Amino acid sequence: MLTKAWAAEFGPRGVRVNAVSRVVNGAEGVREPLAERVRRAVEELGYVPNQAARSLVTRRHDAVAVVIAEPETRVFADPFFALQLRGISKELTAHDSQLVLLLTEGRDDHARVGRYLAGGHVDGALVFSLHLDDPLPGLIQRAGVPTVFGGRPGWNGSAGDVLYVDSDNRGGARQAVRHLVGLGRTRIGHISGALDQTSAADRLDGYRDVMAGANPRLIVESDFTPAGGEHGMRELLDRCPDLDAVFAANDLAASGALRVLRERGLRVPEDVAVVGFDDMLPVAEQTEPPLTTVRQDIEEMGRLMARLLLRGLDRPDTDEDAEAAPNSVVLPTTLIRRASA
Amino acid sequence: MLTKAWAAEFGPRGVRVNAVSRVVNGAEGVREPLAERVRRAVEELGYVPNQAARSLVTRRHDAVAVVIAEPETRVFADPFFALQLRGISKELTAHDSQLVLLLTEGRDDHARVGRYLAGGHVDGALVFSLHLDDPLPGLIQRAGVPTVFGGRPGWNGSAGDVLYVDSDNRGGARQAVRHLVGLGRTRIGHISGALDQTSAADRLDGYRDVMAGANPRLIVESDFTPAGGEHGMRELLDRCPDLDAVFAANDLAASGALRVLRERGLRVPEDVAVVGFDDMLPVAEQTEPPLTTVRQDIEEMGRLMARLLLRGLDRPDTDEDAEAAPNSVVLPTTLIRRASA
Repeated sequence: MLTKAWAAEFGPRGVRVNAVSRVVNGAEGVREPLAERVRRAVEELGYVPNQAARSLVTRRHDAVAVVIAEPETRVFADPFFALQLRGISKELTAHDSQLVLLLTEGRDDHARVGRYLAGGHVDGALVFSLHLDDPLPGLIQRAGVPTVFGGRPGWNGSAGDVLYVDSDNRGGARQAVRHLVGLGRTRIGHISGALDQTSAADRLDGYRDVMAGANPRLIVESDFTPAGGEHGMRELLDRCPDLDAVFAANDLAASGALRVLRERGLRVPEDVAVVGFDDMLPVAEQTEPPLTTVRQDIEEMGRLMARLLLRGLDRPDTDEDAEAAPNSVVLPTTLIRRASA
Repeated sequence: MLTKAWAAEFGPRGVRVNAVSRVVNGAEGVREPLAERVRRAVEELGYVPNQAARSLVTRRHDAVAVVIAEPETRVFADPFFALQLRGISKELTAHDSQLVLLLTEGRDDHARVGRYLAGGHVDGALVFSLHLDDPLPGLIQRAGVPTVFGGRPGWNGSAGDVLYVDSDNRGGARQAVRHLVGLGRTRIGHISGALDQTSAADRLDGYRDVMAGANPRLIVESDFTPAGGEHGMRELLDRCPDLDAVFAANDLAASGALRVLRERGLRVPEDVAVVGFDDMLPVAEQTEPPLTTVRQDIEEMGRLMARLLLRGLDRPDTDEDAEAAPNSVVLPTTLIRRASA
């Protein structure tokens, strides 16, 4: 059975091309007799590995994967992702590169995403909304595709060797809380995001920078959703009924908090002042009252991620060129005053 | 310069793998001396072309592309697409196949989508929201990837050789208009969708089936959006101020129409009864008043599209098996009565 032999030799998924490539480039994992035969065939074909040829091979798809480490349902429910994708899409289209969005039902599917990335279908990947214990970064590293992260990845020692685009989450949170302090508020609560994400952890750090020594019961962990904001607000009011301000980690959570305050008959900002984060439109303008918030330019973050990746792909792959290498970018934030604080 | 020679021999995009494959399968387009060398290398490697091995090669990605023939901004603004993607995502995940969503800025990018599909990155494609003059179907056909369409494609002679999943748009429209007639309404307007889409054209046909001989000024073409529904409603009221009912081609357009009727001080349903199409939740329940509409199961359509495609991919590629071949599916619709008609 030649078919069976073929499958045994090359694996069930037709990896023979990879086998050739691995032998030529001196990697492990190919059994000797096959390696020998591949080497002979390669000589026969006149295939000579060489940097330029290699880069032709590795950058031939004109396609970039986008991975959002959230279930497909959240991707479509949270306008943050649509905005970031809009920036990415515009930049990739301007470079005639195809945006390939890899959707999943959840974290269990990330191994499959890793396989797709490793399969040689894209030139690089843009990855955002990572959570700390997600296997995705490891899978991406093993896949060997150039990657730019949206938001600083949280694992240790990452600073030097990963590229990311982020907002100044800690500085922005300080702006928000200082604004509340400037209004004379003293019992300022914080509804955080999911603390396994650096954006949430950094915003909590910014809150703590200003509120050093504050009662830890003024902090509730939430998840960046309107429902989470409602739940967090109820919890805060139960714990500290005399609360006079809230900093919510994003506008969606703030919109949920505003609903609960209204339900309880508390006036905003007279009784409780509220500040959000994102300046997500139209959400932040349509809340009742309109939301004071910390603006980050989400679409621009997407555009920069794509630009950094494409620049990295175009860069000759030599160590001497290290100074011209792209660097991670942290964008500044701005406080936008509306009626809620 | 070996690099140059390599590029001249194999093309600028590293197509050497395709060259091997084309020679083995006896296709045209490979120059003879190279073909000879490839043949020798292939013999050396013991590569034998064979149906099963070939299907292993062609079905090795465990990935399915989804192409929505609308700009990325509409994909994220219209919950219809999120719902259809939800069905697709669940079904593909259940089969451990990766959902690869190809986003574009607009129709100008469809040639690039065609190139990606032709590039051997996916096992098949699910394509929806096609417009009549879109080059995509031709590009997909040339790409040679198995495809299932969401909504009946509009080109001539398509019935026999394309697979699609659709709702009974014409029958559903008849249900809507008959319901309005049953309420005693006689001057029934129609705000259609974009008439270069079969879903819109079929719903208009259904309206005409019931309203044969109606004043053509009772029909305005629109585009399935809330803003389009507002504009269409204004136009209808300007043309026929004594209108007593409207059938809008989808719920989003109906929600826009309801806003305009409220603005003009017209009571729904007393002065003007309104029926939509989709039963898109929460939209249809949250309009003022809640919307009577024609339900189609959008998520189920997505799930069926994915199921049809996967079944086609698993099917042995023989003509004898034609009876077991999957067929296109048209799902029934149901009238859902709420307060608007």
